[in-house]
Amino acid sequence: MSDALRGLKDRLADVNALQAAAALMDWDHQCFMPSGGTPARAEHLGILTRMAHEAFVADETQRLLQDSHGEAETNEDRAMLRVVQREMDQKTKIPASLVAEKTRLGSLAHEIWVKARQDKDFASFAPALEQMFDITRQEAEHLGYTDHIYDALVDLYEEGATHADCVRMYETLKGPNVELVAALNAAEKPDDSFLYGDWDVATQRAFTETLIRAIGFDMERGRQDTAAHPFCTGFSVGDIRLTTRFKSYLPSAIFGSLHEAGHGMYEQGSPMAWDRTPLAGGVSMGFHESQSRTWENLVGRSHSFWSYFYPKLQASFPALASVGLETFYKAVNKVESSFIRVEADEVTYNLHTLVRFELESAVLEGSLAVKDLPAAWNDKYEAYLGIRPTDDSVGVLQDVHWSAGLIGYFPTYTMGNLLSYQIWNTMLQSVPDADAQIGAGKFEEVHGWLRDNLYRLGRSVPPKELALKLTGKPMGAEDYVAGLSAKYRGVYGL
Amino acid sequence: MSDALRGLKDRLADVNALQAAAALMDWDHQCFMPSGGTPARAEHLGILTRMAHEAFVADETQRLLQDSHGEAETNEDRAMLRVVQREMDQKTKIPASLVAEKTRLGSLAHEIWVKARQDKDFASFAPALEQMFDITRQEAEHLGYTDHIYDALVDLYEEGATHADCVRMYETLKGPNVELVAALNAAEKPDDSFLYGDWDVATQRAFTETLIRAIGFDMERGRQDTAAHPFCTGFSVGDIRLTTRFKSYLPSAIFGSLHEAGHGMYEQGSPMAWDRTPLAGGVSMGFHESQSRTWENLVGRSHSFWSYFYPKLQASFPALASVGLETFYKAVNKVESSFIRVEADEVTYNLHTLVRFELESAVLEGSLAVKDLPAAWNDKYEAYLGIRPTDDSVGVLQDVHWSAGLIGYFPTYTMGNLLSYQIWNTMLQSVPDADAQIGAGKFEEVHGWLRDNLYRLGRSVPPKELALKLTGKPMGAEDYVAGLSAKYRGVYGL
Repeated sequence: MSDALRGLKDRLADVNALQAAAALMDWDHQCFMPSGGTPARAEHLGILTRMAHEAFVADETQRLLQDSHGEAETNEDRAMLRVVQREMDQKTKIPASLVAEKTRLGSLAHEIWVKARQDKDFASFAPALEQMFDITRQEAEHLGYTDHIYDALVDLYEEGATHADCVRMYETLKGPNVELVAALNAAEKPDDSFLYGDWDVATQRAFTETLIRAIGFDMERGRQDTAAHPFCTGFSVGDIRLTTRFKSYLPSAIFGSLHEAGHGMYEQGSPMAWDRTPLAGGVSMGFHESQSRTWENLVGRSHSFWSYFYPKLQASFPALASVGLETFYKAVNKVESSFIRVEADEVTYNLHTLVRFELESAVLEGSLAVKDLPAAWNDKYEAYLGIRPTDDSVGVLQDVHWSAGLIGYFPTYTMGNLLSYQIWNTMLQSVPDADAQIGAGKFEEVHGWLRDNLYRLGRSVPPKELALKLTGKPMGAEDYVAGLSAKYRGVYGL
Repeated sequence: MSDALRGLKDRLADVNALQAAAALMDWDHQCFMPSGGTPARAEHLGILTRMAHEAFVADETQRLLQDSHGEAETNEDRAMLRVVQREMDQKTKIPASLVAEKTRLGSLAHEIWVKARQDKDFASFAPALEQMFDITRQEAEHLGYTDHIYDALVDLYEEGATHADCVRMYETLKGPNVELVAALNAAEKPDDSFLYGDWDVATQRAFTETLIRAIGFDMERGRQDTAAHPFCTGFSVGDIRLTTRFKSYLPSAIFGSLHEAGHGMYEQGSPMAWDRTPLAGGVSMGFHESQSRTWENLVGRSHSFWSYFYPKLQASFPALASVGLETFYKAVNKVESSFIRVEADEVTYNLHTLVRFELESAVLEGSLAVKDLPAAWNDKYEAYLGIRPTDDSVGVLQDVHWSAGLIGYFPTYTMGNLLSYQIWNTMLQSVPDADAQIGAGKFEEVHGWLRDNLYRLGRSVPPKELALKLTGKPMGAEDYVAGLSAKYRGVYGL
């Protein structure tokens, strides 16, 4: 190995250690930290994040990276250099002054947004949001793009994705999805009242641990704790942390755990040899979300899954003894238009992200003024979901993303949904009896296929190339539209 | 504030953030980390520790420190500069090559020691130990001293303490302590068999939390978890973490929790304004241990404490219903010579550290050869404790300290014991009815006195000056000898 490459790897290991420390601080904050630790934790996190950034963009790191190109002798090293160069470009193209301005505005806008949502008063948030769109526009100009300003932004979260990709994806999706939602809204709703109760927390914890162990999350290389908002994080390939939450709505813990375990299994599947390097982990937001959705929805909300696990759930919670499997299955697959994205079911979910994608695109393009967002938002909800938000707190003010400058992020949620079906269908060609296996509580082959064909690649193959390599075609909405329609018309007997 | 002073404080805040991250990684390792995290955690910890060291001893930090002297305008800043200068001297006087050699030898010697203890084979450990004494001697020469080579070493853990101080302390202690131990060994032993059982862990956790809350450990600014070996750590003044363990011997959790809470309350007592600065925390090993011993022994093993808490303990553990308070009190104050220091009671404990102090001094002075340590060890145990170790695993090989180069450390345990009584007696002059208050479950005044007179000083006053300022006299063994004798002759009815 050349001296430059070795030197670069040492530097990146330092950056990785600082990032792992920051991730641990964040995990501890959400899971265990006493309230008295808040002020110091914020300072410590700020310092470590700054140090990680400084160590990464340091002249010396840039020189080593420059000198390493062309000296890589293995495919792994070439892939690593590509990943690092991309990140270096992102972090050095935007002037430090703009980064600082965005950070400053971000914390200010967050405070204003919290209050505005509370007060249901979009007007008080509009000036800060306008500034945030302005800064984000400048950011996009620095990053550069060919066709559409949105390209520079969505690429930050999903490498190579463009505005045109998003338009194409939503075009395929929109008609059938709006139609399906309308049909399901009009149908008789399954009863799910029995899913609400005073469920014992220790039993919920034990049952969710049984589930995530069964599907293949390795508890020797990870653990599950409790947090207000479920998330998955990790400090190394051998140490991936999930969180879940225990509510009066029983599926909250069950599907929260399966969702995060999906993220976690993807992370655990990176080769140990890539631990603490930029090649470990998930390749993009879309691919990451595809795996959480796979285990939450394609596996976790399937009939076969519950034909195996429902008797065990009933044994854990005797209150369910009188509820049959079919009733339970229908209840956890209930579809209903509602205002809040994070509480939406699998079918209506993409219409929520569609509204946001169309609106943020329009504002960036200049065809929609920030002040007109609430009315446009409500109109689109009415058109796509058949319901009109009663006020802005359950409308345009519900998400934190825009106040934080996360513009161009929402479509990646839907990419995850699309990819989950597209990858699943590919897997079925190799594991045609996957459904029967799941019905027998066997997940090794399904998990093994995903691990061997996706997880073990870590971040080494860029997402667009990966979709092609893995499924034989670019990411598209076709598998998803067909799969969703077939499943839910079945559930609802339409 | 001068630019240099401001710059220095910023640098120290960076060092503090790295140290807090390392401390959190260590806490997580001992409390929660899955086994798969071990290799990466070791690498991460190594990197962060190196970064903290590099940031501290950096030329720029040294220049800022130099320029700050004479520019401090407040007593606080002057105290801070004193603390930092002392640490800078310690970290820069020893050549990096010697530090590296000690680190290398340390991990090697640790492995050899583990195996030697297992095999009860001191001879296999002797060469590594000889090298460790050698390196430590070199370290002491670099640090410098006036009277005795030991001075340079014990000062690392207890600022300003000397070999002569230790000799004086043990001379006052030795005769009465050996005599008391002999008398108690000869007396009829209290029955403590009822303290062993299959105690419910959740109940133990709840009860120990009740105790530490009651004495004043602030659970809004700290928490208690479980670890194999109890310890106290912290990431800021507002976030102090204790650990305890739950065993078949009930007092293990109870006194372990009280001991660590003593450390924790000292840490929590630093002014919030000093958070993340070198002035926060405990001033020395001896003072820190004095507070853990105060809450474990002077409070926690007192008759008044249990006259209040024993009915509650009985309510938590019905198996104790038939055991009276007096029987319980005697049982948790049982004294008996035994081989292992970490399991020793309050009375025999100092004879264990005395043996180590005399032996390490003799080796450093050259009057004892490393190969002759086992025989000398056993002779001293026989002379002071009246028992002769049956093999080296319960003798000279029992402690990890020497293999890690912690030579000059053992006397600080005994300093803690002495200081606990000396400070307690001073407190009694201001809170004469402390015992009655404890008997009524009231700890505010005792805790308040310690907080106002000791904890709030953090590390601002050096230990020798602090002993004088706080108790009106230098640290001595007199209060301890008298207190111990009075208490245990009472317990045993001698």
